Amino acid sequence: MAATSPGYSITVRAHVKKGSGGAADIASAVSAAGGSLTALDVGGSTATELVVDVSCDAIDGAHGERICDAISALPGVAIHKVSDRTFLLHLGGKIEVTPKVPLKHRDDLSRAYTPGVARVCRAIADNPEDVRRLTIKRNTVAVVTDGSAVLGLGNIGPAAALPVMEGKAALFKQFAGVDAWPVCIESQDVDTIVEIVRNLASVYGGINLEDIAAPRCFEIERRLRELLDIPVFHDDQHGTAIVVLAALTNALRIVGKVPQQVRVVLSGVGAAGHAIVRLLRSQGFGDIVACGRRGVLRPEDAGTDEFRKWIVEHTNPRGVQGSLVDALRGADVFIGVSAPDLLTGDHIATMAPDAIVFALANPVPEVDPFAAAQHAAIVATGRSDFPNQINNVLAFPGFFRGMLDSGTHQVTDRAMLAAAAAIANCVSPDQLAADFIVPSVFDAQVAPSVAEAVRKASAQS
Amino acid sequence: MAATSPGYSITVRAHVKKGSGGAADIASAVSAAGGSLTALDVGGSTATELVVDVSCDAIDGAHGERICDAISALPGVAIHKVSDRTFLLHLGGKIEVTPKVPLKHRDDLSRAYTPGVARVCRAIADNPEDVRRLTIKRNTVAVVTDGSAVLGLGNIGPAAALPVMEGKAALFKQFAGVDAWPVCIESQDVDTIVEIVRNLASVYGGINLEDIAAPRCFEIERRLRELLDIPVFHDDQHGTAIVVLAALTNALRIVGKVPQQVRVVLSGVGAAGHAIVRLLRSQGFGDIVACGRRGVLRPEDAGTDEFRKWIVEHTNPRGVQGSLVDALRGADVFIGVSAPDLLTGDHIATMAPDAIVFALANPVPEVDPFAAAQHAAIVATGRSDFPNQINNVLAFPGFFRGMLDSGTHQVTDRAMLAAAAAIANCVSPDQLAADFIVPSVFDAQVAPSVAEAVRKASAQS
Repeated sequence: MAATSPGYSITVRAHVKKGSGGAADIASAVSAAGGSLTALDVGGSTATELVVDVSCDAIDGAHGERICDAISALPGVAIHKVSDRTFLLHLGGKIEVTPKVPLKHRDDLSRAYTPGVARVCRAIADNPEDVRRLTIKRNTVAVVTDGSAVLGLGNIGPAAALPVMEGKAALFKQFAGVDAWPVCIESQDVDTIVEIVRNLASVYGGINLEDIAAPRCFEIERRLRELLDIPVFHDDQHGTAIVVLAALTNALRIVGKVPQQVRVVLSGVGAAGHAIVRLLRSQGFGDIVACGRRGVLRPEDAGTDEFRKWIVEHTNPRGVQGSLVDALRGADVFIGVSAPDLLTGDHIATMAPDAIVFALANPVPEVDPFAAAQHAAIVATGRSDFPNQINNVLAFPGFFRGMLDSGTHQVTDRAMLAAAAAIANCVSPDQLAADFIVPSVFDAQVAPSVAEAVRKASAQS
Repeated sequence: MAATSPGYSITVRAHVKKGSGGAADIASAVSAAGGSLTALDVGGSTATELVVDVSCDAIDGAHGERICDAISALPGVAIHKVSDRTFLLHLGGKIEVTPKVPLKHRDDLSRAYTPGVARVCRAIADNPEDVRRLTIKRNTVAVVTDGSAVLGLGNIGPAAALPVMEGKAALFKQFAGVDAWPVCIESQDVDTIVEIVRNLASVYGGINLEDIAAPRCFEIERRLRELLDIPVFHDDQHGTAIVVLAALTNALRIVGKVPQQVRVVLSGVGAAGHAIVRLLRSQGFGDIVACGRRGVLRPEDAGTDEFRKWIVEHTNPRGVQGSLVDALRGADVFIGVSAPDLLTGDHIATMAPDAIVFALANPVPEVDPFAAAQHAAIVATGRSDFPNQINNVLAFPGFFRGMLDSGTHQVTDRAMLAAAAAIANCVSPDQLAADFIVPSVFDAQVAPSVAEAVRKASAQS
């Protein structure tokens, strides 16, 4: 069921002999190969041939190659160049550092740099609190990774993770005016990572941990929270949990159920799963059954992992045993943050009436969403080509905006619950529908609403 | 001889009773108190009083207070608010992180972030060299400090150093399009600093060490150069040495002397002094006498400091002994990177004819430049209110531009000599004068010329 995506958009420069089938044949070939044609630009014409730039979306890299093969197989057509718009966009990176102050004149230099800057330094040395007033600290977030769990790619290291961190930084600025900077750490040792982040913290008003493998991420987060006086947020945990709770809040409104009465089955007991259990419990969800690779999580599955132990101790009040499929029978809600293709539509059919299915494994969900939709009332995924995309972009920019504005030192459950409610409430009662349980990532009211909710929650804490 | 500076510019809001002396009295009072009036704006008027915003430059903070006292001592005048334009400029910091790519539409997001970004990450994981092509790495510099030797302020720590690092980053972008980011490190331990910078290097194309105390800075630089495949530059050393050599090159042109024949006396054997000795030697200066606090540096002054030992071994070919004043007799060139007010005009008078004096201690030079100018042919300082300012801004932006463009892994003497020559040559023969031995920091040809010279030098290495 894979769809073409602008993330795999290519532009093929084809030279087409005049008298051959021409551009129309190319359009047909792209379609026949499964590509989504977005533009056909004739860029030149000689006595014997046309130069045609063919832009289309593919499913993935291999599909892009098949499309190219289909075009070049046409009689009279030769491919001279294939450019990939995603790669073109990434040339030289996606963010830059720009001055906010004028530096055109000697007087500007005297104020922004020596000698004037010395007084500002002295003021901060005399009154350390002033660093939030007189420097970038009040608006900066470190996007920290060790590259150990990047998207679906796994442990690709800090350099290969950089495009994701740059993208995150770009989103921070675009959606909430936050100045975020990639901190990609070569080491994957907990002590080293903690020590580095602790030592860098004077420049930042907040820390966003990103794509760090579990269980290391829990330990890093906990120790940094003890050491630092700025909030430490792990987007894969807290961002995901906030958006899941927002979506679930609206989904329950639609089916007319309440947190205290529903049975939730969670697949995936890594970083995201752990945070989801915590936040759902804070919101009053009492019946959560957590499943790992070997089915319903048992004490012996946790071993020495204290974070899994915590899950065991705080879930499964009815003592359910067996596989994920066993647990799913009669459940009201399925939340998957685990692996592709664990379930079929038939499994979803065993859930309670008006079932809610969030199959968030990316890029391939735990259950095909089209199959799930045959049996569930509401289906959501992490995919952008299906309704109800559970996207962290809804949470992290506004959440940090709110934390930075309030100068808070901690990420609290109260703030996360408030953020989830704010996101949910960006979908008005008359908009609410099975295919519209979360606002669009481009809804301009989301980040300010989340920020406002976080500021209020911080003021109350 | 201190002068007022736009770095100490204040705006005083005064309420002036009508019928009193009014704004003219204020102007006189500011002048009488030694302030440089830059603007008198009448911002409001009622039946009984005028509201006047008085803007003026002061010498320093205490002088600003004296000016305020003078204004408020006037009959019928009350000060309601004093704002400091340097502090106003610093509110919220001086740099920001901005996206270079559009993020307005779903397709933008699909390319800059998931799912498209995954292919870019994968490409870098498969071919690590691609990180320079597909990320910010090829244009980024880490401005690294531990806050241990900030300007003339000493060991004020990483947070209080941040305004300087931000200023540096702003200058990097303004003058050479380089994206620089402050890395202010809490620890002042060499091992920790080296370990942190090494672990952060994947994001950066170069490292600029800044305001780190000697001798720690030498060890940090050396170890990072061994560990990293990106150039490591210490601006306090190499930037200063480059600009000193550029200025000296032009000064010698004016007085008609050559490096091989002049006697140079250096005051200051810290970071800058060490680098100046190295670079001058590379340029053919054979007779350098280096002085520390106890006069001409002797082997016993170096102790276990191998960097001072190096200086002892590579200077003083004539075996000069005694104080700085002793060494200065008959010297052609004095270069001070040490402490205020070590010398008088009379000492300068003992130098060889057509003496060259670079008194670079900041903010107060080794010798009063006006007194020195009575006896020397050419005088330069680090001050912006005297001709011939030796300012590192002439070197570091273009130097890093050239290194980043060439993808060089090392800072070489060849590149530094080329940069110095490029700066010197930005002053044309017909412009060259005793009061104009270095180009203006706002001369737009300087950074590109330096960058071009560094690219050429790197290509030859």
